[in-house]
Amino acid sequence: MPTIQAYAAQDAQSPLGPFTIERREPGPEDVQIRILWCGVCHSDLHTARNEWKNTLYPSVPGHEIVGRVTAVGSAVTKFKVGDLAGVGCMVDSCGHCPSCAEGEEQYCDNGFTGTYNGPVFGGENTFGGYSQSIVVKQSFVLRICHPESQLAGVAPLLCAGITTWSPLRQWEAGPGKKVGIVGLGGLGHMGVKLAHALGAHVVLFTTSPEKIEDGKRLGADEVVVSRDPAQMARQAGRLDFILNTVAAPHDLDAFLALLKRDGTMTLVGAPAERHPSPDVFALIFKRRRLGGSLIGGIRETQQMLDFCAQHGIVSDTETIRMDEINTAYERMLKSDVRYRFVVDMATLA
Amino acid sequence: MPTIQAYAAQDAQSPLGPFTIERREPGPEDVQIRILWCGVCHSDLHTARNEWKNTLYPSVPGHEIVGRVTAVGSAVTKFKVGDLAGVGCMVDSCGHCPSCAEGEEQYCDNGFTGTYNGPVFGGENTFGGYSQSIVVKQSFVLRICHPESQLAGVAPLLCAGITTWSPLRQWEAGPGKKVGIVGLGGLGHMGVKLAHALGAHVVLFTTSPEKIEDGKRLGADEVVVSRDPAQMARQAGRLDFILNTVAAPHDLDAFLALLKRDGTMTLVGAPAERHPSPDVFALIFKRRRLGGSLIGGIRETQQMLDFCAQHGIVSDTETIRMDEINTAYERMLKSDVRYRFVVDMATLA
Repeated sequence: MPTIQAYAAQDAQSPLGPFTIERREPGPEDVQIRILWCGVCHSDLHTARNEWKNTLYPSVPGHEIVGRVTAVGSAVTKFKVGDLAGVGCMVDSCGHCPSCAEGEEQYCDNGFTGTYNGPVFGGENTFGGYSQSIVVKQSFVLRICHPESQLAGVAPLLCAGITTWSPLRQWEAGPGKKVGIVGLGGLGHMGVKLAHALGAHVVLFTTSPEKIEDGKRLGADEVVVSRDPAQMARQAGRLDFILNTVAAPHDLDAFLALLKRDGTMTLVGAPAERHPSPDVFALIFKRRRLGGSLIGGIRETQQMLDFCAQHGIVSDTETIRMDEINTAYERMLKSDVRYRFVVDMATLA
Repeated sequence: MPTIQAYAAQDAQSPLGPFTIERREPGPEDVQIRILWCGVCHSDLHTARNEWKNTLYPSVPGHEIVGRVTAVGSAVTKFKVGDLAGVGCMVDSCGHCPSCAEGEEQYCDNGFTGTYNGPVFGGENTFGGYSQSIVVKQSFVLRICHPESQLAGVAPLLCAGITTWSPLRQWEAGPGKKVGIVGLGGLGHMGVKLAHALGAHVVLFTTSPEKIEDGKRLGADEVVVSRDPAQMARQAGRLDFILNTVAAPHDLDAFLALLKRDGTMTLVGAPAERHPSPDVFALIFKRRRLGGSLIGGIRETQQMLDFCAQHGIVSDTETIRMDEINTAYERMLKSDVRYRFVVDMATLA
């Protein structure tokens, strides 16, 4: 098996550093991809530091992958050598459970295989995008139609993009709908861009007054500083849907109160500690719902990528070298990035 | 104004006792009803004891009212003297907000007027069904088509019935659906009966092994003792919908884990203290939802009553005298009732 360069965490405490991994030779259904860009997701940090208590070490994070096809198996029909290609959070699933049959592989009853950290229900480790190349079966590889000049900004679509797109579509964000986006980070800024492009009236909630202008530039019709009770009160009962992207424990009631009757707030952030318990009266008195959503299926990811290519949507990124990843993690924890770090994988060689 | 006998709590600590109240003369739209039966709801106790911190004293509870029409206003077309009639949790709403326009008066933007304890957003007190008679505008009075012999069992339909019916209908309980009912009390036993009559496969969850046989008699296809982890594990990921009727704080995660992808658990109980905070991962990993539901609209209440009359459904009741209400509250707190106390209002005279 070919040996390649990667960047790995060896345990929860140590910084990430150079590491060598093996990748399989492409089988009949496989696509081999030289990785050009890899986005840096908060899940990478959660996993590298074992914050979800399920990390397999050594851990090579990275599931916002864009690259170029360097080899294809004999049965591959979707890709040829030289094509651009993307890989997101999943590289396999059982393929036959009801969720897989419906194209919702992320909810696979038997547990999808993560691009890194292996199958979600346990099994052999997998190594992600902080590496020179990856081999993935074609059904989990995405087509990229954006121009080459935008590739760095495309990488975060593979996780931040689909994670916000899927619930926005599920809850029918579009013309005539008022949609709240909570948090302006990697996910939140994609939520604002996508909800705006889908035609919804977008209300962004941020704790940072200095992000107001940026929120509007990204597509928000209104920006509410969520620490200001008067601004929050003006939104009470006004929103059809709220996409909550904040991955730290916070008061959910403050946002539930902003939903109309039958409105839903979907959580896509997964804090290591629990949120304060939500108020049951806030749910009962307006028949509101609190839900969660996990990335999106492969078919839906392709739809999102095609929509973004058509509308010229990419992530706002700051590109870094691979050896800057540990500093980037620290800055990410301070929300000191607008709005997604992307690693130039040429710096790994 | 006519003076009538009632039963009231004068403060949060004292037992309920005899009290005299006034009822208005029927206006053009009003229906005057001599109360025959009044069900005893957990909300009555919450309110009498000010457990929701919003009680107006003196408090005359009771919102599961069945009686006979004794007078009608000049504009009343739906009822005539001698008809049977029912009154549930509401006696008025604004009539013009979006929720009222859609027949969802319980979610009135301006706050419906409770049958007791006044408008939900504050205002003059109202007195409920622990009384000889009541005067209600016709649009909030329900037709009763059950035979006279069943009237005691009809009274609880006005709250326990509609509170379980509305979410069962909202989430499409019916043939081919697996529906969980959590708790076998006043609400839960109606949930089992209604879900069964709607054609769903009903799984009842109870902490009491001695309720298994009764659960099956009421219509449950399966009864799970929720304190037995092995029995709970066998239901993991199997349910389309869960109606959770338990009004005491408890571990919601144990039930969320039983929902299929895209399943919803609706809470209809409102504990005075909060539940432990639910696990966000349980919501995210199967796109599950936690919701709430409040009674039901007037039109929907009539549909439920008609459905119950057609299917011979009533509540299982234990009838009591009005002066037994304080003992009944203590027994209700110990779940020592199968499954609803109903006051024979003839005992108040």
